[in-house]
Amino acid sequence: MKIEIFDTTLRDGEQGVGVEFSADDKRRVIHALDALGVNYIEAGMITDETSAAFFDSLAGMRLENAKLAVFTQTAKVGSAAEDDRLLRLAAAAPVPCAVVFGKAWLYQVTDVLGASAEENLRLIRESISYLVQQGKEVIFDAEHFFDGYADSPEYAMQTVEAAFEAGASRVVLCDTNGGMLPDVVGLVTGAVTAEFDRIGIHCHNDMGMAEACSVAAVLSGASQVQGTISGIGERCGNANLNTLIPVLQCKLGFDCIRDRISVLTATARAVNDAANLSFDESEPFVGGYAFTHKAGTHIDGVKKHPRSFEHIEPEVVGNARNTVISGLSGRAAILDKMRLCFPDAAFSKEDPRVIRATAMIREREADGFDYEDAGASLALLMDEAMEKRERYFRLLELKVLVDERDTEANASSAAAVIKIAVGEREYLTAGEGNGPVNAIDEALRRALTRFYPEIADMHLTDYRVRVLDSRATASSVRVAIESTDGKSVWRTVGVSSDVIHASWQALRDSVEYMLSRAKENG
Amino acid sequence: MKIEIFDTTLRDGEQGVGVEFSADDKRRVIHALDALGVNYIEAGMITDETSAAFFDSLAGMRLENAKLAVFTQTAKVGSAAEDDRLLRLAAAAPVPCAVVFGKAWLYQVTDVLGASAEENLRLIRESISYLVQQGKEVIFDAEHFFDGYADSPEYAMQTVEAAFEAGASRVVLCDTNGGMLPDVVGLVTGAVTAEFDRIGIHCHNDMGMAEACSVAAVLSGASQVQGTISGIGERCGNANLNTLIPVLQCKLGFDCIRDRISVLTATARAVNDAANLSFDESEPFVGGYAFTHKAGTHIDGVKKHPRSFEHIEPEVVGNARNTVISGLSGRAAILDKMRLCFPDAAFSKEDPRVIRATAMIREREADGFDYEDAGASLALLMDEAMEKRERYFRLLELKVLVDERDTEANASSAAAVIKIAVGEREYLTAGEGNGPVNAIDEALRRALTRFYPEIADMHLTDYRVRVLDSRATASSVRVAIESTDGKSVWRTVGVSSDVIHASWQALRDSVEYMLSRAKENG
Repeated sequence: MKIEIFDTTLRDGEQGVGVEFSADDKRRVIHALDALGVNYIEAGMITDETSAAFFDSLAGMRLENAKLAVFTQTAKVGSAAEDDRLLRLAAAAPVPCAVVFGKAWLYQVTDVLGASAEENLRLIRESISYLVQQGKEVIFDAEHFFDGYADSPEYAMQTVEAAFEAGASRVVLCDTNGGMLPDVVGLVTGAVTAEFDRIGIHCHNDMGMAEACSVAAVLSGASQVQGTISGIGERCGNANLNTLIPVLQCKLGFDCIRDRISVLTATARAVNDAANLSFDESEPFVGGYAFTHKAGTHIDGVKKHPRSFEHIEPEVVGNARNTVISGLSGRAAILDKMRLCFPDAAFSKEDPRVIRATAMIREREADGFDYEDAGASLALLMDEAMEKRERYFRLLELKVLVDERDTEANASSAAAVIKIAVGEREYLTAGEGNGPVNAIDEALRRALTRFYPEIADMHLTDYRVRVLDSRATASSVRVAIESTDGKSVWRTVGVSSDVIHASWQALRDSVEYMLSRAKENG
Repeated sequence: MKIEIFDTTLRDGEQGVGVEFSADDKRRVIHALDALGVNYIEAGMITDETSAAFFDSLAGMRLENAKLAVFTQTAKVGSAAEDDRLLRLAAAAPVPCAVVFGKAWLYQVTDVLGASAEENLRLIRESISYLVQQGKEVIFDAEHFFDGYADSPEYAMQTVEAAFEAGASRVVLCDTNGGMLPDVVGLVTGAVTAEFDRIGIHCHNDMGMAEACSVAAVLSGASQVQGTISGIGERCGNANLNTLIPVLQCKLGFDCIRDRISVLTATARAVNDAANLSFDESEPFVGGYAFTHKAGTHIDGVKKHPRSFEHIEPEVVGNARNTVISGLSGRAAILDKMRLCFPDAAFSKEDPRVIRATAMIREREADGFDYEDAGASLALLMDEAMEKRERYFRLLELKVLVDERDTEANASSAAAVIKIAVGEREYLTAGEGNGPVNAIDEALRRALTRFYPEIADMHLTDYRVRVLDSRATASSVRVAIESTDGKSVWRTVGVSSDVIHASWQALRDSVEYMLSRAKENG
């Protein structure tokens, strides 16, 4: 049986504290989710000109699997739907689907909204009809459905009926406060699916049970699940799609995203990265620790009999087994990667170059490097293991001076002095910028352009810093840099107790990667 | 009905990647858990002299509510229990309870252990009898019980029977791989409790359902739940007691820790702190975001009708409601926040101070500031809108020199020279550190400690940098800083095109916030 996956990371997820996506991030996330094979992507709520402009920018976006949706609410009490500003903005958004949320809890209608039971049903009917007439597929989110059902099952059911009558394609039962237990969600969903098809489920995690409640709803006949990547969302978050998809597809045999599930782990990381959230490595299925074995007996057992200590094969979701103390773990994966990077070389698992690369990766990951999203640094590391890494320049000296004369003005500055050697030639130059890393980047590129003119095409597109443990500015930091030459994009990483040094590592890798690839293609 | 709470944070929790407790930490955690009112505290496993010495150090420890337990396993295949080194060490530990784990899955007995079905039953019986004879209360952890039950229900039940016959006080059904769904756990537990009383449940979170499975077991007759604070544990962790206790006690009416539940939030923070783990603020019930409302309509709703948007009163678990302010927040929300910050002031929505604060928030958010997760910077902004912000010092000069002599070594450095004025007095000093921000932090604190000695208690606990648009090192960056004085934690933010300047803003706010709050409380 088909279960539709509805992603709301960019809408309900963005309501999480500290979660913010730029318009570029949002587009990246949409493409990643589409490649994962979800059925719907709720790209945001329209509340003003800025959010409307973002939707306008999506016009003509080509997606392979997903329909884009805009989120809005029923018209204001006493208004006609066609006069409602937000509904008109939603209708104008160039996406095929609109999600309308409305109240299903009588107490909320009378006491919070201050409307009559019938007026709320009218708002549901007319808001949906209006958007259907404007050419949208309309999904109705029945807010507080489970609290509403406990209060007045008749009224809650009337809201579902009203929505379908008005032309909704799906009605989604929402546990808005996240206070429900799976058994209750299952029973109530069963009562609804006994009367209506095309029912969805939307759960929050305030009881730590968003996924269990969603599964209970599916087992009671719901055919759409809503959730977010990594459960990102307001308060305790939403149902976590990274968990729900493998549970539904691999454990219960539902038809969800099929073989695209193999990119689940990579997608989860990419979305967390776009949100600049630190990835929770203990996350089920996709976390770095999900298949990491620490206890000695487990490691021994898992090697001989994987099913003794793993409830699913990690490769299914694009993850990998890992053991904390074993240097052998992951060598097969590294071998695969090296075969990919050097298609002309012949490797066996016992090849000293593979062993060397494995040891280097383990050592650097123990220091805090993370190559998952730093493919260019990983490629250079493999060049090094192959003894093929070329050193295009040597750094002889680097000094940076920061002078904050007037700290209240936004105009300050850093100057960097750099001395490099290329072969026998030395060159000293300087650069300035907003902050030390910017100044170093300027100086380095000025110095290198003299020897490698193609460097002029390259620039940084993103720069992120994260502290790796909790002793803050004096502890290790990881710097991740994204660069482009206008044609392709590559990512590098640096780790050090010194943020400037970590930045330098990532900058140097970025430049060396560009030069080495330019040479290969030249 | 009484449900016993069995905490294994110090044993199964410590098997989590990166989790390590010193002996002092363990003693602190034991006292915190005892004060919370849990019934059993598994303090660790004895494997060698060091772990045995830790248990010896617990002799005579006075606890009010909890029994201490030592964790061990059935004797080695072919051995007599009284000759088994680990069982003897466990017997010698000065704690009233011993937990013995043994295999309940026939496949594991034959294929992993390489023993006969009967030999494994003998090991279970004799290991338990031996410890009972040595005066221990013995709890049997039936490892892989649910996988075992699916494989051979008869054999799985025989292990439970053998344990009780040998004198076990409780038998705990373990989902060791964490791959079970709540419905299955409920059905199987029901089959066991139909024949035996005193059954416990021990779940792992590999399906994101450890709590839902534990609740299902309790609803099927289990009378003990095992878990850890914040779900700390191997792979994806254990069942989270911070979630399970309020669900069982407040939502389902079981008798767990009674009114001690009011210290749940504080206990969760203390244990995470002892484990040096960064606290997950989105954790159900106890997280800082669990009752934090962001969307404008929600804030409005929760004020009028808390149960509309909260499934439980936060005070019950020792937590508190919070609203975060963003550019999207209406003036009403800002008014609320100001009333909260200045309880003695009388405000109306038209108050010029409220209008001023609203305008300041909008303007700064347009520049890229984000106050959602920077409550201390927001509080200072409100002081400013109230014309009550005190300037504790002025920055006269700030210079930083970074010198990367040997960029391949991890030992580099930044030195900062700072000159500040406090009233009429000026002071010049320097600091050094790993990177410019660390150096500035050091120099600033050295300078200020002279005037404000309390600054010595303060240190940074997190530092994050994020580029706000896609032109990288030359574009705007937002720096978020988290600081503590050992008692509380506060967060500040800075935005500038210059990362050093943005860091300076966040640092200055952090220091000023601490000084202003110290003054209020002093």
